[in-house]
Amino acid sequence: MNFIKKIFSKSRSLEDGIFFDTIQKILGFQPVNTDFYRKAFTHRSSNKLDKDGHPINYERLEFLGDAMLSAVIAAHLFNKAPNGDEGYLTKMRSKIVSREHLNELGKDLNLVQFVESKVPIQHFGENIHGNIFESLIGAIYLDKGYVFCERFIQKRVITPYVDIARLEGKVISYKSLVIEWCQKEKRVFHYDIFEDNGIDGQRLFGVKLSIDDKVIARARATSKKKAEEKASQRAYFAFQEKIDKK
Amino acid sequence: MNFIKKIFSKSRSLEDGIFFDTIQKILGFQPVNTDFYRKAFTHRSSNKLDKDGHPINYERLEFLGDAMLSAVIAAHLFNKAPNGDEGYLTKMRSKIVSREHLNELGKDLNLVQFVESKVPIQHFGENIHGNIFESLIGAIYLDKGYVFCERFIQKRVITPYVDIARLEGKVISYKSLVIEWCQKEKRVFHYDIFEDNGIDGQRLFGVKLSIDDKVIARARATSKKKAEEKASQRAYFAFQEKIDKK
Repeated sequence: MNFIKKIFSKSRSLEDGIFFDTIQKILGFQPVNTDFYRKAFTHRSSNKLDKDGHPINYERLEFLGDAMLSAVIAAHLFNKAPNGDEGYLTKMRSKIVSREHLNELGKDLNLVQFVESKVPIQHFGENIHGNIFESLIGAIYLDKGYVFCERFIQKRVITPYVDIARLEGKVISYKSLVIEWCQKEKRVFHYDIFEDNGIDGQRLFGVKLSIDDKVIARARATSKKKAEEKASQRAYFAFQEKIDKK
Repeated sequence: MNFIKKIFSKSRSLEDGIFFDTIQKILGFQPVNTDFYRKAFTHRSSNKLDKDGHPINYERLEFLGDAMLSAVIAAHLFNKAPNGDEGYLTKMRSKIVSREHLNELGKDLNLVQFVESKVPIQHFGENIHGNIFESLIGAIYLDKGYVFCERFIQKRVITPYVDIARLEGKVISYKSLVIEWCQKEKRVFHYDIFEDNGIDGQRLFGVKLSIDDKVIARARATSKKKAEEKASQRAYFAFQEKIDKK
């Protein structure tokens, strides 16, 4: 019996190790209270209870994360769109924190792989991706406070995804911007698939964009086309940042 | 001409002095960038423009303040109601940040007295009180950051107003709790009106509650009854705090 227990706890800590290694990579910092993050990935179907008999799952953290995300995005828009009135700011925020957009963010980080649940992954709806992304933000807020949480949102949401021109519908396709620039500058570019999980209903493609044989950006999405677009957007932002720093 | 200018600027700085003295009392700290607070009290009807021709009024700050308020209240509820699920937390937050409740908060601080506008004060709707309260929170966030803003909300919203039992409908009247307690403890209590602004449509009463001839709490509201209830609630919380500290 003890022998079985030992094996079990060993495999459990191995699993834990992989979970926290990956989470740490996503976060860009070392979590302090790991319980928050475990909870952020626990689906209600796991039927876990705390010592007082209250359910343990990510739903309360999702509420908290949603509130923090809304506040951080509001402050960002307030600063970045000094001429936008209240209506404009409200509309832009809705676009950024839309269910669809949050699902994309969660998918891109492949968060669903860590969900603890009694329901098979294929049975979840699309919203699991966004929900887990929000609960992760809630966990970061509890673990490290507002300023840290803001920095995470800046790095993981705002820098790679929030482009006001795009949200206003002024930029239609980043892929076309990249192609145009490469042709003008006589650079050779490639979009290559480096991952395809093959899971029905939860299909994910990973695409990398290389320019002159150097990998510039990678991205994951539910279709090859979407992943290419996302990688192009990242390459575009990476270039923008370089130009800004000059 | 210079003489007139001098008088004008003198009266203007006197007015500014009164404004910032009162604001400082409300805030409980000295503002750093006073422009934010001026803007927080500027109604669109004043038709002010900045040097680039963009309108100066409180509406953008109101958007920002609303987002900060929602985040702070979410975190408070998350901590104070550890057994409340996502639906419960959402419902409780809606009650706290409801239009009606925010109007009450703004009225209680008598913020409307400082609104810069071309429209007479009587012509504003009820919502001006809550809107200005939110824009003030936006100004505090910009001036002093999230943690300071959170502290202000704690002091001005949560401590005096947010009582989970009351919001859940478990406590119906704080006045009856006070009366019951005084009768049981054989204390003499009085509710006295110390202020009545007499403005039609913006009527405000100030009521103080004394127990054994010592003033325990003051409150302002649109009716005598509401002001009494609010003063009772404050007295109740003041007692609770004393008990907690013991």
